Amino acid sequence: MVTTTEHRVTQAPVVGFGIFSTPNQLPRVGFRMGDRVFDLFEATSKAEFAEPSLNAFMAVGRDGWLETIDAILALRNSDAHWIAADDVTTHLPFEVADFIDFYSSLEHATNLGRLFRGETAPLGVNWRWMPIGYHGRAGSIQPSGVPVRRPWGHVLREQGRQPEFTPTEKLDFELELAYVVGASTVQAADPEAASDAHIFGLVLLNDWSARDIQQWEYQPLGPFLGKSFATSISSWVTPLCLLDGQRVPLTPQEPMPLRHLMTAEGWALDIELTVELNGYPISRTNARSLYWSPTQLVAHAMSNGSALRTGDILATGTISGRSPGTEGSMIELTGNGQTPIRVGDDARAFLEDGDEVRFTATAGRLSLGEVFARVLPAPPLRNCSTVVSRR
Amino acid sequence: MVTTTEHRVTQAPVVGFGIFSTPNQLPRVGFRMGDRVFDLFEATSKAEFAEPSLNAFMAVGRDGWLETIDAILALRNSDAHWIAADDVTTHLPFEVADFIDFYSSLEHATNLGRLFRGETAPLGVNWRWMPIGYHGRAGSIQPSGVPVRRPWGHVLREQGRQPEFTPTEKLDFELELAYVVGASTVQAADPEAASDAHIFGLVLLNDWSARDIQQWEYQPLGPFLGKSFATSISSWVTPLCLLDGQRVPLTPQEPMPLRHLMTAEGWALDIELTVELNGYPISRTNARSLYWSPTQLVAHAMSNGSALRTGDILATGTISGRSPGTEGSMIELTGNGQTPIRVGDDARAFLEDGDEVRFTATAGRLSLGEVFARVLPAPPLRNCSTVVSRR
Repeated sequence: MVTTTEHRVTQAPVVGFGIFSTPNQLPRVGFRMGDRVFDLFEATSKAEFAEPSLNAFMAVGRDGWLETIDAILALRNSDAHWIAADDVTTHLPFEVADFIDFYSSLEHATNLGRLFRGETAPLGVNWRWMPIGYHGRAGSIQPSGVPVRRPWGHVLREQGRQPEFTPTEKLDFELELAYVVGASTVQAADPEAASDAHIFGLVLLNDWSARDIQQWEYQPLGPFLGKSFATSISSWVTPLCLLDGQRVPLTPQEPMPLRHLMTAEGWALDIELTVELNGYPISRTNARSLYWSPTQLVAHAMSNGSALRTGDILATGTISGRSPGTEGSMIELTGNGQTPIRVGDDARAFLEDGDEVRFTATAGRLSLGEVFARVLPAPPLRNCSTVVSRR
Repeated sequence: MVTTTEHRVTQAPVVGFGIFSTPNQLPRVGFRMGDRVFDLFEATSKAEFAEPSLNAFMAVGRDGWLETIDAILALRNSDAHWIAADDVTTHLPFEVADFIDFYSSLEHATNLGRLFRGETAPLGVNWRWMPIGYHGRAGSIQPSGVPVRRPWGHVLREQGRQPEFTPTEKLDFELELAYVVGASTVQAADPEAASDAHIFGLVLLNDWSARDIQQWEYQPLGPFLGKSFATSISSWVTPLCLLDGQRVPLTPQEPMPLRHLMTAEGWALDIELTVELNGYPISRTNARSLYWSPTQLVAHAMSNGSALRTGDILATGTISGRSPGTEGSMIELTGNGQTPIRVGDDARAFLEDGDEVRFTATAGRLSLGEVFARVLPAPPLRNCSTVVSRR
């Protein structure tokens, strides 16, 4: 199996907060800029930076985030408290509270509707009226670098036959961005600008999917075990306030959204996204094409009175563009496996054991943290069946 | 609005662990038996009982739970460390990790399928093959007693018209039990008896639902804002090991489940359930009629490799029986509002502002903690629209 990463695209420096450790020291908060990590606890002795998650720091709110970033940037030319990025181990950057996964790319929703439900009206009648979304499994979220094991599940191979319990044959990735909630609803200083007040930063997210399990189970309550086995996120959370320069006008929405989704000045983020499989770029797209804005996702999630908590994440759903080679999942790139794509000297319909998937994202002069993982073979059946009671 | 509770049914004593506080003392772990609460921290000085959640105690595993219960029961005739239940304030008993909601009542799934998707094949083709489920919003779970505010949401009042953003007109309850995960996957002593090893106890759960919001949004990713505004649970968690005497054979399953769901001796729990609206019983049913067993719910949730964490809850989904008056939701009791039911001198199609809903559960000689909440009117629109950015 090819596992080279030599074709990796050149990246602007990675910038973001994360949790890191060094030999003989406990995990703590750091700020990465390119090939260095700033040790915030060593530099400030503040308790929130001695934590093994960003949650305490994220909860302080926007003023505290801006102050901290300004202080770090003022010290960017110093050597004190900066550690070589190669010398640190990264960890899950924050404790995930609730994980909402939206479906906010018009192209992805159209492509999936066609593949799952046939050609007639692939886009649901509700789709253009509000951001469609659902809750994913927070406990399965893992940081970049941790491998993903091919899951077992119920699969119906052929209409009219019996389903089987078998390892998935349609393992897929989904290219997504996720907005990380810092300040909870109660702590937000300015409820009139909710996305700025609540969103601490962004990560790349790989919503690993088993398409055959998903297809058989998702009616009527939505995706469950076809998604919940693993979700990978970046180890570094890039602050939203460092992406002000990447705001671009939102694509006009038709029909005009109902009142709680109306925004005076809708914005999207100009972030270039690349998917590499075994070192070969197989998809390039841009987050600016997303139909629903970050502000609308936050507004919709709160529209029924739900509170946001520190550590909630709101993911965009798969980001796909309009032209071939801009799709954010294998099922779209290969037409549900019917037209495999070239990957170096190999071909792929879906992911195979040993495959390595890497997402990278460039936002102007900086990059988000990458999301990388290798696919491991399915475990032996014993690991799945031993949970059955033999009383 | 009638708010009398004088028709309340007579109950066996409530037994369970919970978090309580008394004036000038911090919330801590207690064990309720009938009209008294045992102060575990005062009696033992153990750190896990000084916590404001049961999670630390739940994580110790089955041997620790049994030992603690035995110690308390040995002191049941003493006066030391027992406080009158009327003198304590209760709190959310544990921090919820992930919230899985299943759909394990054959009668409920059939009724809902008929109401949401018409008479033809109301039960999905996948339903008898595996427990259908999805993830709910953990952050919206609240303890018994906290009121529920009528949510706003997108609703399509008539086919072919535009949707509206409006307070729900179809506010409903769902009568459920939920299994609370104590020992995480890693800590489980005996993976061959997963439900006994992992499940710490049971709570009653009210999965509040806005049927009009749910109906318009749920395709294709399942319920989202029609459910995520609030979910109520008992303040006391009844240990599973105290319900051994209530185990009854599971209803035979046809077709025979696939391997990971096969159980040598399937069991259900004989628990009598009552729903009261404004003090009048409107539904009585029994959890023994559920199609899928607790063991199968746990096995299925773990079948794709997902780990269970302390504080995860696995809910049964609405529990409905076969005969009229045994349905666990208003939408079933009233045929989607078409045939309102009598509630004392009133009639109800769905819930109205000021209504009080109470679930009680008797399991042989003991009761689970009740779940009670009052419905508050929808907030003014400002509270919903102020999250929109006006940059």
